[in-house]
Amino acid sequence: MSDRYATFARSGPGRALVKRLGLPDPPSLRRHQPGDSLVTGPVLLDAAPGGRLREPVAALLTAAGVELRAPATLGADHDPTTAVSDHDPTTAVSDHDPTMVGADIEPTMVTADSATVVPEPSMGQPPRNAALIFDATGITDSTRLRPLYDFFHPHARALLPSGRVIVLGTPPELCAAPREATAQRALEGLTRSIGKEFGRGTTAQLVYVAPGAEGAVESTLRFLLSGRSAYVSGQVIRIGQPTDQQQPVDWERPLAGKVTLVTGAAQGIGAAIARVLARDGAHVVALDVPAAGEALAAVANEIRGTALQLDLTAADAPTRLAEHLAARHGRVDVVVHNAGITRDKTIGRMDATRWDSVLDVNLSSQERINDVLLARDLITAGGRLVGVSSIAGIAGNRGQTNYATSKAGVIGLVQSMAPVLAGRGITINAVAPGFIETNMTARMPTLLREAGRRMNSMAQGGRPVDVAETVAWFASPASGGVTGNIVRVCGQSLLGA
Amino acid sequence: MSDRYATFARSGPGRALVKRLGLPDPPSLRRHQPGDSLVTGPVLLDAAPGGRLREPVAALLTAAGVELRAPATLGADHDPTTAVSDHDPTTAVSDHDPTMVGADIEPTMVTADSATVVPEPSMGQPPRNAALIFDATGITDSTRLRPLYDFFHPHARALLPSGRVIVLGTPPELCAAPREATAQRALEGLTRSIGKEFGRGTTAQLVYVAPGAEGAVESTLRFLLSGRSAYVSGQVIRIGQPTDQQQPVDWERPLAGKVTLVTGAAQGIGAAIARVLARDGAHVVALDVPAAGEALAAVANEIRGTALQLDLTAADAPTRLAEHLAARHGRVDVVVHNAGITRDKTIGRMDATRWDSVLDVNLSSQERINDVLLARDLITAGGRLVGVSSIAGIAGNRGQTNYATSKAGVIGLVQSMAPVLAGRGITINAVAPGFIETNMTARMPTLLREAGRRMNSMAQGGRPVDVAETVAWFASPASGGVTGNIVRVCGQSLLGA
Repeated sequence: MSDRYATFARSGPGRALVKRLGLPDPPSLRRHQPGDSLVTGPVLLDAAPGGRLREPVAALLTAAGVELRAPATLGADHDPTTAVSDHDPTTAVSDHDPTMVGADIEPTMVTADSATVVPEPSMGQPPRNAALIFDATGITDSTRLRPLYDFFHPHARALLPSGRVIVLGTPPELCAAPREATAQRALEGLTRSIGKEFGRGTTAQLVYVAPGAEGAVESTLRFLLSGRSAYVSGQVIRIGQPTDQQQPVDWERPLAGKVTLVTGAAQGIGAAIARVLARDGAHVVALDVPAAGEALAAVANEIRGTALQLDLTAADAPTRLAEHLAARHGRVDVVVHNAGITRDKTIGRMDATRWDSVLDVNLSSQERINDVLLARDLITAGGRLVGVSSIAGIAGNRGQTNYATSKAGVIGLVQSMAPVLAGRGITINAVAPGFIETNMTARMPTLLREAGRRMNSMAQGGRPVDVAETVAWFASPASGGVTGNIVRVCGQSLLGA
Repeated sequence: MSDRYATFARSGPGRALVKRLGLPDPPSLRRHQPGDSLVTGPVLLDAAPGGRLREPVAALLTAAGVELRAPATLGADHDPTTAVSDHDPTTAVSDHDPTMVGADIEPTMVTADSATVVPEPSMGQPPRNAALIFDATGITDSTRLRPLYDFFHPHARALLPSGRVIVLGTPPELCAAPREATAQRALEGLTRSIGKEFGRGTTAQLVYVAPGAEGAVESTLRFLLSGRSAYVSGQVIRIGQPTDQQQPVDWERPLAGKVTLVTGAAQGIGAAIARVLARDGAHVVALDVPAAGEALAAVANEIRGTALQLDLTAADAPTRLAEHLAARHGRVDVVVHNAGITRDKTIGRMDATRWDSVLDVNLSSQERINDVLLARDLITAGGRLVGVSSIAGIAGNRGQTNYATSKAGVIGLVQSMAPVLAGRGITINAVAPGFIETNMTARMPTLLREAGRRMNSMAQGGRPVDVAETVAWFASPASGGVTGNIVRVCGQSLLGA
């Protein structure tokens, strides 16, 4: 599980060699520790004219204790490379006067929080920010994309390590006019490019917020700004109106009082998920096959949870699981379908058992369990279902026709069930891990392992905790507006569909 | 533009060295030449029980002169690795009896064409096929995915070079039941894995056909089976009910009588598009900037088209273009927005002109032109709009925030305009080229160029003609059911979002 190259590259002599030879330079990623502040420095926030998210975001971040900054007013001392282009008069700077920002926000929205927005000093070196957040919801036409450039250009090189970039937009499919949908869809090219460009552990995401869902963004912004999302980058996230009305009382223990089930919890990613959910206050029912009983008991004891030995492929497994949950807890609030197996072979050399078993464990058993738990009303309003897909389910993989089919199916499960479950106040989402350092990846051939580790914007593999933190974000009572999402935990892997 | 490595790897000594060292082994790709037959050998066709596409596909392929085969009946001499797994009785072979295939098709659908389906010999070496087509529309549950394995397992290693794999499904978003949607979505993991696994120039695609659109598949199947799609692999294509009722009389000259406009036609991909559309019978109006006038005239003369010098970013360009088309032709049937520029810099070092000009040329000018041509009714029912996006618009790219934003916007343009234009009988789609060998890529640094060339399922770059053939498929009068699609021409590049 050790990344000896990364350790070397961060050492004194290693650093010099990496620089001289142009080798991958894996940065140390900031990861969340209990008690950490949300961000490590000030957050620069701005909006294109007409944006509907700047004010609510400013209010919630200020309330969260974040130091907010607004960009400096453009003046004579401004970076001359941002001068007006004479190329196309329709994109001239008069379309985007930063002093206009927020001017079209209704006065009643300008709360006391706005007073804490300190203008950034306009002289000398730009100060370094921990995060750049841009509200692009006001952009209704491709000729009005210029404010994005005006915001990111002067601040691109002044981000603290493990910096955060968040662009906020309107889901293109909800835009009435094609021109607005086009401009909003264009944001994806920008954020994905920034994720590849900024380096030093910076992550970049595009968050599409449905009209009316402005109040549902806090859990997502907290996740994305914090060290919890260290290995999540280049993602497109959609937030809709909340499926339920929960609010966590304590952001450090949002899952207090919640009964959560984690399958495949004896080791690796599953054990990490169990630990993080327990850290966040949940009671965890840790499930795994009887053969993993000892490791499972160790995890359950460590987190003061319950160990449940069960073979999920047994015909009576869903019923037995439901009966256990009903008898002990009367319900289950969060179900994390993490159990999964690989049985790799090219399809020409694969026996039928490998095909059947992978499909059954990774996909069909999830469907059977969901159906029984839902039919018995053990998952009710405020419930959270979380699946584990894979980058292989998105991009396909040689030797994994069975695995990739099952993991693409998990995406289908999330997308098809989300609208059905929304009516019951339940969300469903999935994580799609990329190269995560586990015992499994430690056994890979060296060259393949090194390629997997380096071919992403972080130049390193992720850790099980990175997947677990993403699951915890989905599981949060404050994430009622987050459903139907597939979020990769892959450091913005180059691999994709 | 020459790929010296590929030339070497295909030579006698090169072939030996490539094999011994495990180097990339770029196959020679079959590309279409006028007069070529659709496929180079027999096509194996089967369906999961209940499939609605096997019969119409068998009928159209037989009419097209293709030799169809049905898989051998499972018997005692069948590959023992496909024996029934005792893992899960719900997926036992009784669920999938190949003798059932087509049994639930209405008798009136079993036309004379079915008689030409010759059972494959079940003894000895499996015969080699040019293509494998599987109709998976009958699969309504993840526990019924096994027929895919039963079909591909025994035939995976008996495909001719530049083989073709096509899986037919139902668009998940149109499935009523979540379980069906899940199983149909799972197909994507299978086809993308097959594309990475089969090698030797094999392409693999997933074609989702909407219920009721069974009669609209011919242009797409012809494209995917032929050498026209040499560099298209790992794609997901959606076919709906046709927006219009055209049928080409001659598949060799489907665009006869059509007026087509190609922007950026003086060189590279644009010139290739102009040539292929002309080969398919179209009159081509080749447009480029005045500075490229000489090269433009050469292309136009070669294809007996018209050269039109115009700077698309000029304020009066849409009007002048519309007036030219109205005066000379009274209409335009096909518009290919190929003109595009790059002005690469990281956003921190990019001047505003680079941002503005790329957005304007690559995205906003397309919108302005479309709007004017549509407002003046110069594009009418049967019309085809084709955009050129890019893999950078999907995945983002370092140093291309401007370009990637513009090319992601092209995707938004296609997706937002498709439903609007469908009502007028017009389709809109885009190609997204990956690494295509042009003068531009020839100037790339060697290492970057080699990485781009090899990191795909074909282990080589594509050619401008590959993009052009894809555009010609969109442009075909028979492609009325193909709209809102973004199809990558990238050899199934590893790069993705």
